[in-house]
Amino acid sequence: MPESLINVLATTSELREIFSDESVLEAMLRFEVALAKAEAEIGVIPQSAANAIGRVAAAPKFDIGELARKALRAGTLSIPLAQALAGRVHTLDPESARFVHWGATSQDVSDTAMVLLLQRALTVFSADHDRLQKALRRLAEEHSRTVMLGRTLLQPAPPVTFGLKAAGWLAAQRRSWTRLAAAFEESRVLQFGGASGTLAALGDKGLAVSSALARELTLLAPEAPWHTQRDRLAALVCACGVYVGALAKMARDIVLLMQHEVGEAAEPGGDGRGGSSTMPHKHNPIACSLTLAAATRIPGQVASFLYGMVQEHERAVGGWQAEWVTISRVVQDTGVALASMRETAEGLRVDPRKMSGNIASTQGAIFAEKARFFGDEVNEDPNDYLGAAEDFRKRLLD
Amino acid sequence: MPESLINVLATTSELREIFSDESVLEAMLRFEVALAKAEAEIGVIPQSAANAIGRVAAAPKFDIGELARKALRAGTLSIPLAQALAGRVHTLDPESARFVHWGATSQDVSDTAMVLLLQRALTVFSADHDRLQKALRRLAEEHSRTVMLGRTLLQPAPPVTFGLKAAGWLAAQRRSWTRLAAAFEESRVLQFGGASGTLAALGDKGLAVSSALARELTLLAPEAPWHTQRDRLAALVCACGVYVGALAKMARDIVLLMQHEVGEAAEPGGDGRGGSSTMPHKHNPIACSLTLAAATRIPGQVASFLYGMVQEHERAVGGWQAEWVTISRVVQDTGVALASMRETAEGLRVDPRKMSGNIASTQGAIFAEKARFFGDEVNEDPNDYLGAAEDFRKRLLD
Amino acid sequence: MPESLINVLATTSELREIFSDESVLEAMLRFEVALAKAEAEIGVIPQSAANAIGRVAAAPKFDIGELARKALRAGTLSIPLAQALAGRVHTLDPESARFVHWGATSQDVSDTAMVLLLQRALTVFSADHDRLQKALRRLAEEHSRTVMLGRTLLQPAPPVTFGLKAAGWLAAQRRSWTRLAAAFEESRVLQFGGASGTLAALGDKGLAVSSALARELTLLAPEAPWHTQRDRLAALVCACGVYVGALAKMARDIVLLMQHEVGEAAEPGGDGRGGSSTMPHKHNPIACSLTLAAATRIPGQVASFLYGMVQEHERAVGGWQAEWVTISRVVQDTGVALASMRETAEGLRVDPRKMSGNIASTQGAIFAEKARFFGDEVNEDPNDYLGAAEDFRKRLLD
Amino acid sequence: MPESLINVLATTSELREIFSDESVLEAMLRFEVALAKAEAEIGVIPQSAANAIGRVAAAPKFDIGELARKALRAGTLSIPLAQALAGRVHTLDPESARFVHWGATSQDVSDTAMVLLLQRALTVFSADHDRLQKALRRLAEEHSRTVMLGRTLLQPAPPVTFGLKAAGWLAAQRRSWTRLAAAFEESRVLQFGGASGTLAALGDKGLAVSSALARELTLLAPEAPWHTQRDRLAALVCACGVYVGALAKMARDIVLLMQHEVGEAAEPGGDGRGGSSTMPHKHNPIACSLTLAAATRIPGQVASFLYGMVQEHERAVGGWQAEWVTISRVVQDTGVALASMRETAEGLRVDPRKMSGNIASTQGAIFAEKARFFGDEVNEDPNDYLGAAEDFRKRLLD
Repeated sequence: MPESLINVLATTSELREIFSDESVLEAMLRFEVALAKAEAEIGVIPQSAANAIGRVAAAPKFDIGELARKALRAGTLSIPLAQALAGRVHTLDPESARFVHWGATSQDVSDTAMVLLLQRALTVFSADHDRLQKALRRLAEEHSRTVMLGRTLLQPAPPVTFGLKAAGWLAAQRRSWTRLAAAFEESRVLQFGGASGTLAALGDKGLAVSSALARELTLLAPEAPWHTQRDRLAALVCACGVYVGALAKMARDIVLLMQHEVGEAAEPGGDGRGGSSTMPHKHNPIACSLTLAAATRIPGQVASFLYGMVQEHERAVGGWQAEWVTISRVVQDTGVALASMRETAEGLRVDPRKMSGNIASTQGAIFAEKARFFGDEVNEDPNDYLGAAEDFRKRLLD
Repeated sequence: MPESLINVLATTSELREIFSDESVLEAMLRFEVALAKAEAEIGVIPQSAANAIGRVAAAPKFDIGELARKALRAGTLSIPLAQALAGRVHTLDPESARFVHWGATSQDVSDTAMVLLLQRALTVFSADHDRLQKALRRLAEEHSRTVMLGRTLLQPAPPVTFGLKAAGWLAAQRRSWTRLAAAFEESRVLQFGGASGTLAALGDKGLAVSSALARELTLLAPEAPWHTQRDRLAALVCACGVYVGALAKMARDIVLLMQHEVGEAAEPGGDGRGGSSTMPHKHNPIACSLTLAAATRIPGQVASFLYGMVQEHERAVGGWQAEWVTISRVVQDTGVALASMRETAEGLRVDPRKMSGNIASTQGAIFAEKARFFGDEVNEDPNDYLGAAEDFRKRLLD
Repeated sequence: MPESLINVLATTSELREIFSDESVLEAMLRFEVALAKAEAEIGVIPQSAANAIGRVAAAPKFDIGELARKALRAGTLSIPLAQALAGRVHTLDPESARFVHWGATSQDVSDTAMVLLLQRALTVFSADHDRLQKALRRLAEEHSRTVMLGRTLLQPAPPVTFGLKAAGWLAAQRRSWTRLAAAFEESRVLQFGGASGTLAALGDKGLAVSSALARELTLLAPEAPWHTQRDRLAALVCACGVYVGALAKMARDIVLLMQHEVGEAAEPGGDGRGGSSTMPHKHNPIACSLTLAAATRIPGQVASFLYGMVQEHERAVGGWQAEWVTISRVVQDTGVALASMRETAEGLRVDPRKMSGNIASTQGAIFAEKARFFGDEVNEDPNDYLGAAEDFRKRLLD
Repeated sequence: MPESLINVLATTSELREIFSDESVLEAMLRFEVALAKAEAEIGVIPQSAANAIGRVAAAPKFDIGELARKALRAGTLSIPLAQALAGRVHTLDPESARFVHWGATSQDVSDTAMVLLLQRALTVFSADHDRLQKALRRLAEEHSRTVMLGRTLLQPAPPVTFGLKAAGWLAAQRRSWTRLAAAFEESRVLQFGGASGTLAALGDKGLAVSSALARELTLLAPEAPWHTQRDRLAALVCACGVYVGALAKMARDIVLLMQHEVGEAAEPGGDGRGGSSTMPHKHNPIACSLTLAAATRIPGQVASFLYGMVQEHERAVGGWQAEWVTISRVVQDTGVALASMRETAEGLRVDPRKMSGNIASTQGAIFAEKARFFGDEVNEDPNDYLGAAEDFRKRLLD
């Protein structure tokens, strides 16, 4: 798997693999093989051609440098790949070569390949999200009575509990995940339309091939090709943006709690985390910084995708070609933020004693609100000032 | 209603009214009145105070210039408004003045007011969306057999039907609307948490007041206050972005079809639309240009909102304060794009004869694909090259 | 001046006035009057027509609601304004009415009007920037020996001086201002091209009128009209983005220093600044929060402007129509950030004692670096660990 | 050189090489070697250590996978690289190992490395920009009398010349390049500050080492370290955005002129350019589509960078860590747009006969403006309607 040091803080090893050259080619070849299989099944091409294509695609070994060079000339990777595949099929079985990519257009291959890659990313995300939710639930339960300062505009405010704070993170992430999972499901659609999106080259067999192909790839068959209707992917990209926003809110909170002067919580260290090249004593919030970095990059990428939705007629000139980079970056940014917050939640160190101390250091000023509303003597037991905090915590966890 | 000429192309009169000073104040006062009513009902404040507050708020006449000046100092409009309201209540009934805004925080007022304004925008959007869908359905039905050039990368491609094109617009907009409507529904939530989001000032009556208040405003009561968890609004802003992207794809197509050299369709004219200050013969695509302008602005605004999600602890310092402008612009941009495409769809002029002529002018080159796949003599009846176009059209309309 | 409460935290009163309806109309009329004057001077239209136009434009009283309604239909404010102006000229002198807007196109009026408004904004910015620089210089001088913790990734690091920190803010803002001022100067250009940007309607007198018109408006005459070449304005919008980024870095630092637990510096209070509607004891960082809010919004707006640069042929369909809102928001966001940081710098309270205390509380850990490099016993006088801080401070101020 | 198929349309081979793992490591090692050399020269570390470090760095062979894994843990690539380097120096000369990276901080290495990579990109850009300007100048000269339709809002307007259009492209790109070149020059600055940006570890020798190091790397020594003052890089990123905007305007124009129905100009074909996987007759605007794709992506990236400017104290937690990906993408997007437009301009095919034909097909409507202004009979020689087109063309070329 080729590394890419320039992007090293903006991905995880699993996601880098998903968008690696090998993986991209595999997904594209999977489309071509499944297409041939479906077309043979429906009787559009000979079974022998499907067999030959399947056999050749199983042992690719393409010259990636040459594919890359030709793709930049052709404006799509699908053309040189289909040509290279046809070339190899020709070697094995000259008759079959012309059936490679039969009736499909470049965008059919690349869009479907991206959909397949996205489904792999979903698997990675799901596992991390579940662990993150579990870890936050544990924190929210353990700290149901851990009182700490509320902070508004970064100034002291009436107390909250750490359990409530963790439950707030959890609930926003759960809502955002629900939207994201729905967007992944809605995007699990085959792209197959041929030159103008009408499957004209397949005569009256277009729909049948389309159904068989979707089944073969375990994708859904959409009502129609979506070459220039990109709302499903756009909604997915947006949902990543919102989810990362929710993750980064948690990261920002933790970074602030980790300040030396505050000292109420800390990322776990260990395994190379958080050292400094000059200051051996330091424990830096690395996982949080990677999450905040992802949240710095992702909104602009969402904008790029949305702007690219304005696509011309049956195939766009620019908007579509812009997408691969953006999607792959958005997914990798999401992945690194998610993995980082999962690690953080699983190992978060909380210091209830420091939390109490910080409340005490405000010398009662934060209780003035209660005095205002109840005309009480100000007492200084923060537990008397928690209002509905515990109710809210429980409702957020439900 | 104050106009704002600098924004004149980026809104509609209905939406400008929703975000006008009067409407903003009305929504904020509605919160304050409903709060007092709910608190009186639960026994937190005297009924006489609720009555006095209700009476005063019904006849506001606030000095908007002074409110604006003080809001910029206070960092929120809610504080000077609550003070002004309390001042007037004091004149009427000195005892009641201190119960204005009882137990609420500034953000409770401004967030809930925004939610109320959004629900008004939804009503405007719904009406336009329904008309747009209806108009597109009519076009998609009427032109089920109107053959036209497919165009990929703005070059001629095998034919499609205009009915299929219109059905593609319709379906993408319908999907995007479904997401947008869901986001509006999810955002129909009360904000009510007091200083730190715990309703501490209400002792053990916080939840009861919260429920009563939500009922009074016909909003949903969320699990907990969401002062720094902005995912619901973010999802709404994103859904506007995707919906406008789908509208703008249609606008881009029409603008291209309206070119003199293409001449296949045109926006309706009439009522001052599309004239030129120097060229009386011209018929400009104004509605489409306003839609494309909205689609140029909105992705960046979506990014702004997503950036702002990274909010600190119990109340943010910057992220929250950034939101009102962005939301109001996103909603108005969406509204002008929607109204423009509704008008366009309702009056679109389609020229099937020009469509045939443009196919003929390609002199058969676009049929080469069929020849390639079927080894046919190239015949030049484009109806023989439509593949599954009609099936796709029907499925998109279902 | 109409207020706009929805934008109230995102502007200043001076800038709101610059983009008010009155000011926008005035700038547009100034173009029309100067055009008539220049054309009369060059002999294109009668002097009497120029006189009549000048007289009528001096007492406008246009119906803003009607202009707004017609502008939205026409896709530009210039057409209804020119018509309204011609109507009034007609009342005064029927012969002269047809010479209103002679040879110009809508975009000539609106672009030039925007350039004139921008020059007014520059005046406001300059005054605030100068005061901000002066205030920061004073802080950087006064605190040349005020030692404080360095903080990296929000963790303690070897000491710096507050003077160095303030000098760093100052220098970044000065560099950013230099770029912004250059962008303003480069944008001080007339727009005047007529329908296709060739001044065709003026025959061989186009250049002469253009020069006279530029002189009249004290603008520069560019090499050619720039209807679809928006790089100058784009560079200006970008320069605002960078400048606000530099201001917001300072705001972020101060917000962090203002935390109760850190307590090393604070925004000035007074005149309604920083109160809380529920917590009378609080002193909130309002000016910083408005600056950070502006910095949350502005990057997306910069993106919007850059998207819009991709304009078609001689006049764009969408990209141009998108600009006014974006520019006016960018300028107002810049203005509120600048005014806020100016106020902050002029009144910043610095607490050197708290700075020392925070260093002491790290119990020497931050000096470990020195020990590592020099093999010293760790001593704990932070003044021994300042390295080149003083040199850097001085160089930044030069 | 590792390929990356997912990004294949969004870079060129030269730029991919500049941001390749080898190139990134080389730039980082160049910093470490130059640092050791400078420190030996000033007498901070032994000459033997500098020699050992230089020797080891000349034959790197680092395990890139391991570096990547550790970098993601450490939150920076600089730490594992310095450790690996020290490890190898230790093998050669144990005494010298501790002098690796002496007094520097991680960000010193990574920022300076990025500056070095940017200077390499500048060289690539300069060559392409010069050729692009030359090609456009030739087009602008050759077609000084090639009359074509003006087009406003994509509707016919009074005529222009193709020479004027090309000169407009040229001038906007030249202005944008001037700004970009200035931004590159301003960014050619060393980063060297140590842990807190004070060079504390170097005692009173910080400035001397800094000067020597800048000289060694042929960079400028800035007034002070700029760890959290990112305005120079931000201005560079913005200038890329504006430049690409100017390139994409040209691409949009050409794409529109290439439409079958317009047919006035075309990208050069050849070498795999512009074919279709299904339609052998097609000639697609590939270079323009890649440029428009870059222009779709880049504004969002600019926003990401600007948002990241809000950096905390002496080293940011998120904003800085976000930058590498963004900068490398912005530079590669700029590079592919530039190379594409250079190729397009050098081989552009212009069809003056089609241009005349399209004017004729408007049947005089576009000349109505002249009739309005001069009361002429409408004649139909478009040369009589060019106004100042030729003057403007010449001025744009000067």
